[in-house]
Amino acid sequence: MRQLVTDVFTSRFDPSPHAAVGLAALDDGAVLRVGDYHLVVTTDSHVVSPAFFPGGDIGRLAICGTVNDLAVMGATAPLGITSAIVIEEGYALADLERIRTSMVHACREARTTVVTGDTKVMGRGEIDGIIITTTGIGLARTVITDCGLRPGDVIIVTGCVADHGFAVMAMRHKLAFDPPLQSDVSPINHLVQAILDVARDDIAAMKDPTRGGVASALHEMAEKSHVGIDIDEPSVPVTAGARAVSELLGIDPLYVANEGKAVIGVSPGAARSVIDKLRGTQQGRDAAIIGRCVDEHHGMVVIDTGLGRRLLAEPEGELLPRIC
Amino acid sequence: MRQLVTDVFTSRFDPSPHAAVGLAALDDGAVLRVGDYHLVVTTDSHVVSPAFFPGGDIGRLAICGTVNDLAVMGATAPLGITSAIVIEEGYALADLERIRTSMVHACREARTTVVTGDTKVMGRGEIDGIIITTTGIGLARTVITDCGLRPGDVIIVTGCVADHGFAVMAMRHKLAFDPPLQSDVSPINHLVQAILDVARDDIAAMKDPTRGGVASALHEMAEKSHVGIDIDEPSVPVTAGARAVSELLGIDPLYVANEGKAVIGVSPGAARSVIDKLRGTQQGRDAAIIGRCVDEHHGMVVIDTGLGRRLLAEPEGELLPRIC
Repeated sequence: MRQLVTDVFTSRFDPSPHAAVGLAALDDGAVLRVGDYHLVVTTDSHVVSPAFFPGGDIGRLAICGTVNDLAVMGATAPLGITSAIVIEEGYALADLERIRTSMVHACREARTTVVTGDTKVMGRGEIDGIIITTTGIGLARTVITDCGLRPGDVIIVTGCVADHGFAVMAMRHKLAFDPPLQSDVSPINHLVQAILDVARDDIAAMKDPTRGGVASALHEMAEKSHVGIDIDEPSVPVTAGARAVSELLGIDPLYVANEGKAVIGVSPGAARSVIDKLRGTQQGRDAAIIGRCVDEHHGMVVIDTGLGRRLLAEPEGELLPRIC
Repeated sequence: MRQLVTDVFTSRFDPSPHAAVGLAALDDGAVLRVGDYHLVVTTDSHVVSPAFFPGGDIGRLAICGTVNDLAVMGATAPLGITSAIVIEEGYALADLERIRTSMVHACREARTTVVTGDTKVMGRGEIDGIIITTTGIGLARTVITDCGLRPGDVIIVTGCVADHGFAVMAMRHKLAFDPPLQSDVSPINHLVQAILDVARDDIAAMKDPTRGGVASALHEMAEKSHVGIDIDEPSVPVTAGARAVSELLGIDPLYVANEGKAVIGVSPGAARSVIDKLRGTQQGRDAAIIGRCVDEHHGMVVIDTGLGRRLLAEPEGELLPRIC
């Protein structure tokens, strides 16, 4: 259904004379030229259910998702965020206030704020809870796309994968863990800025591995960049908690959504300094080199499990609806 | 409920160092400074029900609503629009394609396009139909706010009022008219540009009279500008069809939503040239001077019905939910 809707909408709009990166690129956002500036713009509707989950809520998710989409395109200091809220008549005021407080705090962490907004109310039975659509606007000194990988580039992930998706899944399946699984939902714009500070010209591509997880991000990056990607599965960082849920539900963590991570393609000479920089931060302490780009099997991702090599299948449909 | 949500969300976010007009202004959008540029940003979630109505559909409404919010702040040539769609699982593909085609056409009329987007699917029973959230970005040579009225300024409306709201109401109440009532949903950015061309420095304030109609727009403008407004009711242009529905339902057209009109405050010396310019266009052929700003009853709107003067009450709540 989502693929269908995407197909219906992306191919028919006229190209923009202002866009350096437009709708057809299907990147994390668009890049508009304004004089000498590169304005990055990104939008997402957030429908996560339940709206409150371990480690965050829909408000924190909306701000972080938007901040992170800007960041992975090179706009690490958002100019501002817009917030359009659709809510069910009679939604609990206390919940609304919690959500708003989360948004305020996430904005502060990211050093940005909401600059304009809208509110609509729908009847009971017309909407389940709350939907928050955020749009972010930022300037990029260097625009980073998801299609710039070259053979030889090293693939880095900035931390443990799958925590967001598994935290929401565990909650929906009423699985209790001790300590509880926590979503990783956080703004990573400062982390991305730290990487740009040490390796701006060596970043080939970057992507926010949300829906469809790291697997989906890698597939898109490989296909758009016309390279193959080889992944070394044992190198992929996964927390013990996520590993446990993964085994219980039989779901590969590479397919599960993240909300505070980036997948980065870096030229081989800069990989060490990027990893060192990341590991020196709290958010990037588990960063790891997980693979490499090759000039074969273009558009495909091959994974070495330690027991053998196989194609990492492209995610088909969503493992879990309303994950973000 | 909407007022409540607005209160919860607007007052707590930190002010933006980039914003010339920020969230607290509660204007049609925000204005961000980027070097010497004034970037206007506006967002709205569109939830209109039914999604197809005489004269338009939710797709046309989403594009026009956003283009018009930019235009009334002085950004008449949008740099681009983002579109985030949330849709019910199993929504008819033919309807989706009609909506997309409307969006493409409305973009062409406004000379802009969609530059990035998002799609989410929710289950049946979780959402009724489709929600489209659009965000627009444009540059304003001169920023126009809704708070710049001065005593003596003349109030102009660019055409007949209430057609959008009454068309949707007639459809929901299954009232048939011959010819059928049509929504006025259209982009007015070229019309606003035509006014700026003749009277840029004489435009004191401008507003898009959508939810709550012209009455709501006038109240906001009067209150924020610290002036009173006197309206001459017989001068307010209303089509015969809208007049008929108004009388049938007992609803004042001044309280009913428009989607292709502007309310403009103009210095008295420029009023004639603005009216002449408007009436020379197809969209502005019914433009009229409907009132004047005064240095008394600040924040209030007084209406002269021809039979006497009374306060034009501030709209309380929405006459009709899901109107836009």
